[in-house]
Amino acid sequence: MTPLLNDRFLRALARQPVDRTPVWMMRQAGRYLPEYRETRAKAGDFMSLCSNPQLACEVTMQPLERYPLDAAILFSDILTIPDAMGLGLYFETGEGPRFRNPINKLEEIEKLEAVDPHKDLSYVMDAVSLIRKELNGKVPLIGFSGSPWTLATYMVEGGSSKDYRRTKKLIYDNPELAHRLLDILADSVIAYLNAQIEAGAQAVQIFDSWGGALSYNAYQEFSLRPMMKIVDGLHRHYDGRDVPVILFTKGGGQWLELMAESGADCLGLDWTTDIGNARQRVGNKVALQGNMDPAVLYAKPSRIREEVNNILSRFGHGSGHVFNLGHGVTPEVDPSHAAAFFEAVVELSPKYHNL
Amino acid sequence: MTPLLNDRFLRALARQPVDRTPVWMMRQAGRYLPEYRETRAKAGDFMSLCSNPQLACEVTMQPLERYPLDAAILFSDILTIPDAMGLGLYFETGEGPRFRNPINKLEEIEKLEAVDPHKDLSYVMDAVSLIRKELNGKVPLIGFSGSPWTLATYMVEGGSSKDYRRTKKLIYDNPELAHRLLDILADSVIAYLNAQIEAGAQAVQIFDSWGGALSYNAYQEFSLRPMMKIVDGLHRHYDGRDVPVILFTKGGGQWLELMAESGADCLGLDWTTDIGNARQRVGNKVALQGNMDPAVLYAKPSRIREEVNNILSRFGHGSGHVFNLGHGVTPEVDPSHAAAFFEAVVELSPKYHNL
Repeated sequence: MTPLLNDRFLRALARQPVDRTPVWMMRQAGRYLPEYRETRAKAGDFMSLCSNPQLACEVTMQPLERYPLDAAILFSDILTIPDAMGLGLYFETGEGPRFRNPINKLEEIEKLEAVDPHKDLSYVMDAVSLIRKELNGKVPLIGFSGSPWTLATYMVEGGSSKDYRRTKKLIYDNPELAHRLLDILADSVIAYLNAQIEAGAQAVQIFDSWGGALSYNAYQEFSLRPMMKIVDGLHRHYDGRDVPVILFTKGGGQWLELMAESGADCLGLDWTTDIGNARQRVGNKVALQGNMDPAVLYAKPSRIREEVNNILSRFGHGSGHVFNLGHGVTPEVDPSHAAAFFEAVVELSPKYHNL
Repeated sequence: MTPLLNDRFLRALARQPVDRTPVWMMRQAGRYLPEYRETRAKAGDFMSLCSNPQLACEVTMQPLERYPLDAAILFSDILTIPDAMGLGLYFETGEGPRFRNPINKLEEIEKLEAVDPHKDLSYVMDAVSLIRKELNGKVPLIGFSGSPWTLATYMVEGGSSKDYRRTKKLIYDNPELAHRLLDILADSVIAYLNAQIEAGAQAVQIFDSWGGALSYNAYQEFSLRPMMKIVDGLHRHYDGRDVPVILFTKGGGQWLELMAESGADCLGLDWTTDIGNARQRVGNKVALQGNMDPAVLYAKPSRIREEVNNILSRFGHGSGHVFNLGHGVTPEVDPSHAAAFFEAVVELSPKYHNL
């Protein structure tokens, strides 16, 4: 493979010196970009886009043409694993993801088996290989998966949920069965992310979108523990390179000390956490990724720049910070506002580094 | 007025010794109760129920017939103030609250004026007087209002929102105008809660449902600061009695130290915060209210009891804890599960008190 031309992202994850703070943006290949909407229209529905390696590669590359990004992220969905398990993922306009065959009866959990990514999700690995080839060493490629708890909520609720009624009833009334489901999902995520790493992913992120809906105790038992199993099972060194792991629990700001003990290299922060305070709390155990409120991208570019500056100064001097939003960019954002965000990081961050 | 027969709730808020931990439940007068659904059907729509003092009194009293409650809470809605400002509150089935005339143009903020609760919201004060008479000293009555930030989001978005796009654009792009809106709302809430206190409310709670959607800095400036103005402006001693103030920011667990400096007597906690950790962080500055996950009420009664016990033991020995859920009870909950919740607090909490 071609040598990596920009290793800022990987160096920051390893808390090694960098010339400026690296930056990427969750959902950077997405609906706010007109060129994405064009490719998406060509593909038909969302899953057709995800499952077509050529088109997935095309949209992955699009934001890199526009912005000074320090990482690319595989274009896919967090719910490919339950889809491969036969739950039938689809997207209803404005409704978010849904499953045609959600888990309706507890007995169905007994019958579930971990996915074999090489068989059931080979289209993802094909996309990873293709993107690596296309990137040609420009920036590293991030692979990803949903967390077991997050996947479980969608599988049990059949889609998005306000209060996770069925999934919470499961963890409280049938903790053993809940752990069986989470175990199968953790095994599946391990196999899936390792397959992505083998195909070329240079870092991986675990998206725990709904861990923040749990109580302190339930988070530890039903979301963090399965994620720790994953971190333990991943290729952390593969083919002569270190493969860093980023853990992102949205709404998990109160639990950073616990997450910092997970073995992950980096914690993603949403915007409710003060990144200076987070850095004090986790010390030198992990790098931090985040954490501007995506809604700031609705404000004028001068305000976006101020917010970027504020976060940079709160993190302070030195490496260990990957700049990002605190959640995915939203479809209504003006691409020129995203440009202001990236420019601000590129221009304002060098003074926080000695290199 | 009749002397108060049960002052456990007020004593716990003042961190004075109690025989057991007092308990009430957010939205205790609500759709999970068949008798509530009956009265609601009689009233017609939700706002007709809120604005009819007799019916509002009737539903306020209903849960007290069933459960060993230590406080009653006025039946009303957090959005009565913007409704009184002429925004036209209504409820679409399954959609939550909506405004017929939301703030569409920034100029409309210039024209807004604080409400006169004696003129525009007299039905609420009539309900408070009637409930006090009906309670006849059984337990204290809690009055309440939405927080300025929470009211502002509904007024600017026109209803519930996923990302508060318009309101966040307002605070970032036009902070002065945002402060004008929040100031008018803070003044309105002060007048409104003082009128409730004058009519007989023995404690008041400020519901900051959406403060948790803000960044650390924005929370301080746009949600906490207006709430501090309210706390400063309230009758804290009225007609020979102290009137405690409870501040509840859902999703505010990371900011408890700041909230503890607000002058409020008690902080409400949602279930994501470990109450033992919260107690350490706020010390003797404030009492704490909460914080069982409402979804635990979907689990079997023995599990509900375990969770109650867990929270009691995490808070530990001594006064300063008002037991509650971490958010409102949901319509699907079985009333017998709510009974198990109350029984558990009554039976398990005395061992944490010396009195």
